[in-house]
Amino acid sequence: MASYVITGTSKGIGLELVKQLLELPASQVAKIFAITRNNSSEGLNSLISSNSGRVVNVIAEVQKEDSLTKAAKEVESHLGGAGLDVLVNNAGVLPWDDKQMENVSSEVLHEVFDVNVVSVNRVTKAFLPLLEKGKKKQVFNISSTLGSIARVRDWPPSAAHSYRISKAALSMLNQFYAHEKEEQGFTFLLITPGWLKTDLGSSYADLEPAVGVKEVLRIMNEATPEQNGQFLNIHVPGWEEKHPAYYNGKGVPW
Amino acid sequence: MASYVITGTSKGIGLELVKQLLELPASQVAKIFAITRNNSSEGLNSLISSNSGRVVNVIAEVQKEDSLTKAAKEVESHLGGAGLDVLVNNAGVLPWDDKQMENVSSEVLHEVFDVNVVSVNRVTKAFLPLLEKGKKKQVFNISSTLGSIARVRDWPPSAAHSYRISKAALSMLNQFYAHEKEEQGFTFLLITPGWLKTDLGSSYADLEPAVGVKEVLRIMNEATPEQNGQFLNIHVPGWEEKHPAYYNGKGVPW
Ligand SMILES: NC(=O)c1ccc[n+]([C@@H]2O[C@H](COP(=O)([O-])OP(=O)(O)OC[C@H]3O[C@@H](n4cnc5c(N)ncnc54)[C@H](OP(=O)(O)O)[C@@H]3O)[C@@H](O)[C@H]2O)c1
Ligand SMILES: NC(=O)c1ccc[n+]([C@@H]2O[C@H](COP(=O)([O-])OP(=O)(O)OC[C@H]3O[C@@H](n4cnc5c(N)ncnc54)[C@H](OP(=O)(O)O)[C@@H]3O)[C@@H](O)[C@H]2O)c1
Repeated sequence: MASYVITGTSKGIGLELVKQLLELPASQVAKIFAITRNNSSEGLNSLISSNSGRVVNVIAEVQKEDSLTKAAKEVESHLGGAGLDVLVNNAGVLPWDDKQMENVSSEVLHEVFDVNVVSVNRVTKAFLPLLEKGKKKQVFNISSTLGSIARVRDWPPSAAHSYRISKAALSMLNQFYAHEKEEQGFTFLLITPGWLKTDLGSSYADLEPAVGVKEVLRIMNEATPEQNGQFLNIHVPGWEEKHPAYYNGKGVPW
Repeated sequence: MASYVITGTSKGIGLELVKQLLELPASQVAKIFAITRNNSSEGLNSLISSNSGRVVNVIAEVQKEDSLTKAAKEVESHLGGAGLDVLVNNAGVLPWDDKQMENVSSEVLHEVFDVNVVSVNRVTKAFLPLLEKGKKKQVFNISSTLGSIARVRDWPPSAAHSYRISKAALSMLNQFYAHEKEEQGFTFLLITPGWLKTDLGSSYADLEPAVGVKEVLRIMNEATPEQNGQFLNIHVPGWEEKHPAYYNGKGVPW
């Protein structure tokens, strides 16, 4: 009977996560609050109309604190006194920057930092009071192996600078929350969903969104407080042959 | 006969670094371009007047690209056709944020990110053409063990969130430069100077600025291209007894 708030559910990983959560029984997944910037996502609208009442589309801007305060009030009104169980910070951007770090503009660095890091803080802050009343107290921050400082040399260095910088910063943010909320029983996890064929991941990506998201959901469902603060990779058998660190289901190095 | 550009030389570590560089023979340290926001630093002004010509105070704003373009032109005019050898990105800020991550404001997160990360990119970009003509091609980014994601639990979690997030992001930035400029013979290093008694470090800090800076300078002087991309700690004998990771002269984990 858990409730979920998920950001960035208009398409891609967020939308697929809503879809797969709905395939679980209502006794397990009671209510999903799907945050989007507007109500124009056909994919989400069709999930809403075919799953009466289990998905609520909450319109909010993750880059605006007051918009999130309102969104949290809206979610609270639906929960009827109960707490929120799970928050998934999934909304994110990846601009393909110039190939050289020195040509990445200050504006892009700030904008990507705002969506991928500062907004995660805004969203988490807005929903913390409800999460504190929840039974699971789980927050999943969707990151990327591209955010691993240790693994920069495993990929061509020539793109996504602002994105990788933001995801490295997100690791530190997750560490703080994991540390500071541990005594209250929270679990904060970083999860990398794999390179998935979404608008962000491009059609060159390794995996279908459904494959990566199935694994993200498995990690979410199996999460324990002992894992608090970890950075976890999905597991897709067969990929270790290409590269020992790919989709190995292990922890990602910082 | 090397030339140096150093940011944040009005006080603290930057000023002490200028002082200790001046104690080396002119055959080794030919010229120091000390960047400050204005010309009101008594400490720097007294070093300038007692070391005729070896220190040049360059006034620039590290948060403004056009100001740095001008600064690079000024440095170029002093170098008379020669390149620049060493850049030290030292300017930085550490606000003592609220004890809880969720109370750290978006504005502070952006401002600290701007000074400690985006400005390092601006300064590096501005001086790259001169560094490419230089003999050493060394860039030292002053970071902090507080920026180690792996070591968050070694210190009280309750402060300096925006600072630690920015320094984790700086590690990724340094990785990009190290990777992208390696073939051109550059060495990009992250150096942590230790917890030093400066305005930023406070009077509670472990070490006198002179002690930490002596070690920073040793690391700079011993730096080799093989170390490119590393994150190095100072070495102060005796401190390993307090904590095995303190001032051990080894690499800092990401
Ligand atoms: N795809 C991959 O290969 C991959 C790999 C590793 C990690 N990830 C991570 O997975 C997450 C989702 O990525 P995805 O592949 O699903 O990308 P996507 O298909 O481009 O979807 C991104 C989602 O985030 C929302 N979003 C983007 N910018 C926003 C903003 N400024 N304000 C509010 N919402 C915003 C989008 O909403 P709109 O429709 O309103 O723009 C959309 O719902 C991201 O955090 C990403 O870093 C993806
Ligand atoms: N002290 C420590 O324990 C310690 C430990 C680890 C790392 N560090 C790092 O060492 C570096 C220097 O720190 P410090 O201890 O010497 O600090 P400090 O005594 O406070 O000096 C900071 C220097 O940075 C300059 N600066 C700050 N904000 C600036 C801005 N917005 N624009 C331009 N210049 C700016 C200051 O110039 P103004 O005088 O104009 O403000 C000053 O010259 C920082 O990167 C810091 O993160 C220090």
